[in-house]
Amino acid sequence: MGDTEAQSYRIALGIEYDGSCFSGWQMQHHAPTVQQEVQAAASRVADHPVVLHCAGRTDAGVHALAQVVHFDTQASRTERSWVLGINANLPPEIAIRWARAMPADFHARFSARERHYRYLILNRPTRPALLARRAVWTHRPLDLEPMREAGRALVGTHDFSSFRALGCQAKSPVRTLYYLELSRQGDLIELAVGADGFLHHMVRNIAGVLMAIGRGDAPVEWTEQLLAERDRTRGGVTAPPQGLYLSAVDYPEHYQLPSASGASLLTLMVPTAPENALV
Amino acid sequence: MGDTEAQSYRIALGIEYDGSCFSGWQMQHHAPTVQQEVQAAASRVADHPVVLHCAGRTDAGVHALAQVVHFDTQASRTERSWVLGINANLPPEIAIRWARAMPADFHARFSARERHYRYLILNRPTRPALLARRAVWTHRPLDLEPMREAGRALVGTHDFSSFRALGCQAKSPVRTLYYLELSRQGDLIELAVGADGFLHHMVRNIAGVLMAIGRGDAPVEWTEQLLAERDRTRGGVTAPPQGLYLSAVDYPEHYQLPSASGASLLTLMVPTAPENALV
Repeated sequence: MGDTEAQSYRIALGIEYDGSCFSGWQMQHHAPTVQQEVQAAASRVADHPVVLHCAGRTDAGVHALAQVVHFDTQASRTERSWVLGINANLPPEIAIRWARAMPADFHARFSARERHYRYLILNRPTRPALLARRAVWTHRPLDLEPMREAGRALVGTHDFSSFRALGCQAKSPVRTLYYLELSRQGDLIELAVGADGFLHHMVRNIAGVLMAIGRGDAPVEWTEQLLAERDRTRGGVTAPPQGLYLSAVDYPEHYQLPSASGASLLTLMVPTAPENALV
Repeated sequence: MGDTEAQSYRIALGIEYDGSCFSGWQMQHHAPTVQQEVQAAASRVADHPVVLHCAGRTDAGVHALAQVVHFDTQASRTERSWVLGINANLPPEIAIRWARAMPADFHARFSARERHYRYLILNRPTRPALLARRAVWTHRPLDLEPMREAGRALVGTHDFSSFRALGCQAKSPVRTLYYLELSRQGDLIELAVGADGFLHHMVRNIAGVLMAIGRGDAPVEWTEQLLAERDRTRGGVTAPPQGLYLSAVDYPEHYQLPSASGASLLTLMVPTAPENALV
């Protein structure tokens, strides 16, 4: 009967998920989403309903290696209990990697300083099976050099209007792209980008434009022209979602959250047939 | 009304598949199998029923990077037509990598000289999401050095009775293991083995024994003891199927089929949180 308020805790989670089973991150009425699954599992562990706020909404089919979310709760649990308890209530396609008790001023979305995405392209004559929902497949050979040159024009602070979805609701189309890197291992090409933030479909639109340039269907100067035109209707095809991974989110150091700088590499080795054996 | 026989062609295929959707390779009455899918697709392209013979039957949940099969057909098609036609009739989890017209003495199973498997172990505190059906997960740290030492005892020609499934139907338990290699990249450990042939569950039984040794639950000498005992009931736990990949099959050189020596590496990069961030 006192007037004491129940103590509130703010918990941050790092989440890995296979997006191919879900209609994206955000809650929807009639489709399974990652938010819905994690929110239900966290609410069960908290023993009361919680609401999740995420660092970056992902579209249907898009994966995450380290999505970051936060929620408020009156439940007092150890970080280990949050991880194990929520994981026990999640389907196999979603896994909590870590949990951290955070100060009240932390916000998964608004405190984020830098977001990192990777886009995987399988570049070989025949379609994939093991990477069917994990990479985009293109059978026409991609030349990385013009793609890298075209990518350099995008790095820096620009108006990315030509690379945002028509329905994108961000107030400003200006973003700062810190890096854009392309690498190839065997048949697999990886595009890695980091920015203060990304507009809706921005990584997939960049991937679509760079793939057209890599195939020789568009000139290297196209990225620079698109930036100058600031007109989405002039842009290229939006690359499909299954190649896209939200790979890391960085926060100010004093929050002491796992950062992209601590990234190690997981390698799935797939021996492929020699070129002359292919179609 | 002549007495001419229809010309017959022997076709070999290289097949990649995600085994998590299928009840193994071999045809069954009431469960979807890889053989059933590929046989139906190849029969459609051939325009008559064909029967597939494979290099190595895989169990439910086991994957293949390069399963090899052959079938006989009266249909005359280019190698490219076989690949594209069969792929067009297969689900996304199965893909034909190559097709080759072969001489009549070629047999996918009996001509094979060497078979190669890989077994993937995710060794980190929290369970996987993206590799949920692609690797076995163990949270207890594995020490690779004793595993390597124990593995060396298995290389060579041995009676592998302690490593075969109780129901294994092979006439002889003697096999020659050409190599056994262990490597680690980030949180992922890969066991790679090659032999003239493998007994039923042999790779998974080897993986189970080596994991127990890597955890410190069994001594390094255990592999040698098991070989000497020739008794499956003394062996370790069979490691689960989802970590296993049939990675390559080698044939005599004159068949000019794609070989393991032509293998390149596909890398799926997954940045993971630093150790101190984990449970």
